[in-house]
Amino acid sequence: MNEHFRPVALEHASRLINHGPTVLVTSAAGAQRNVMAAAWSMPVEFTPPRFAVVIDKSTFTRQLVMASGAFGLCIPGAGLADFTYAVGSTSGRHGDKFSRYGMEVRLGPVLGGCAAWLECRLIREPHTEEAYDTCFAEVVAAAADERIFANGHWSVRDDNEALHTLHHLGGGHFARAGSVIRAKSP
Amino acid sequence: MNEHFRPVALEHASRLINHGPTVLVTSAAGAQRNVMAAAWSMPVEFTPPRFAVVIDKSTFTRQLVMASGAFGLCIPGAGLADFTYAVGSTSGRHGDKFSRYGMEVRLGPVLGGCAAWLECRLIREPHTEEAYDTCFAEVVAAAADERIFANGHWSVRDDNEALHTLHHLGGGHFARAGSVIRAKSP
Repeated sequence: MNEHFRPVALEHASRLINHGPTVLVTSAAGAQRNVMAAAWSMPVEFTPPRFAVVIDKSTFTRQLVMASGAFGLCIPGAGLADFTYAVGSTSGRHGDKFSRYGMEVRLGPVLGGCAAWLECRLIREPHTEEAYDTCFAEVVAAAADERIFANGHWSVRDDNEALHTLHHLGGGHFARAGSVIRAKSP
Repeated sequence: MNEHFRPVALEHASRLINHGPTVLVTSAAGAQRNVMAAAWSMPVEFTPPRFAVVIDKSTFTRQLVMASGAFGLCIPGAGLADFTYAVGSTSGRHGDKFSRYGMEVRLGPVLGGCAAWLECRLIREPHTEEAYDTCFAEVVAAAADERIFANGHWSVRDDNEALHTLHHLGGGHFARAGSVIRAKSP
């Protein structure tokens, strides 16, 4: 976690993925760890902050999450586009992806270059896990890089482009959450 | 549906919301109809194309969806930011939102100014509907404006800005899916 990271109040945690960014799911169990990209996640409740994320039952991440009952959601900034695509395209079952792609990781774990991070506790829902690969979780801690998210709000500016969130269109093409439109009050 | 709409193959339907746009949920039952914005949706399966969307149990939309077993997901373009915020902030229980906000609607229903549209059949999952307001659905038909989505791919360009998808940051502020980053192959 770099010096710009600040805690995010749990009642603001849903805002971190409200706009649909691609996330990185980090997991660890015993001596094993992994990271994978997931384009399919969403908040499901504000308070307590709860999320759903699709983690395919064939993945190494799913195995680790089921073993540990916990995972992290890191929200990569635009500067991590190559890393995000790489860890979404390969498996960590046969080799550590953190070291393979040159990503430093500390316990937490928070990845360098991420805009924000959520620590999640799995809520076991065997039916939806089996039928839809959909895992529900509750956020127990959250933090964000204050250069792009502070006081409960995203601040997307020209001077923080490397932290703009990524939104996977498919095939390694990401839309960057760049220009912001302010809708008029109804 | 305007003259630019073309059918989207069902195996490409997940790509329409893969990148996390805010969607409009359209619903009808008997003589009643409604539209609401939903920031919380995601694909859960490619084939058959299935989605999850959070529709709060207090909403009029939830009532209509449970009565009809079906709903539409429209993906608004940036030109619909004001409309999207308005129908996400108000209820249709006491007055038709289509006419209130000057939106023409045809049977389908597809709203003018949307980039794409999905027709969905509710898959009843009483536990997740109750516990997480999360409704699962299968896509039975899809279409998109060929000026921004064609041959299974989004084409985000300067000349189709009004159709760029919206990603709700909160409080009526939307990030527009503008510039596209192409990640290198791992």
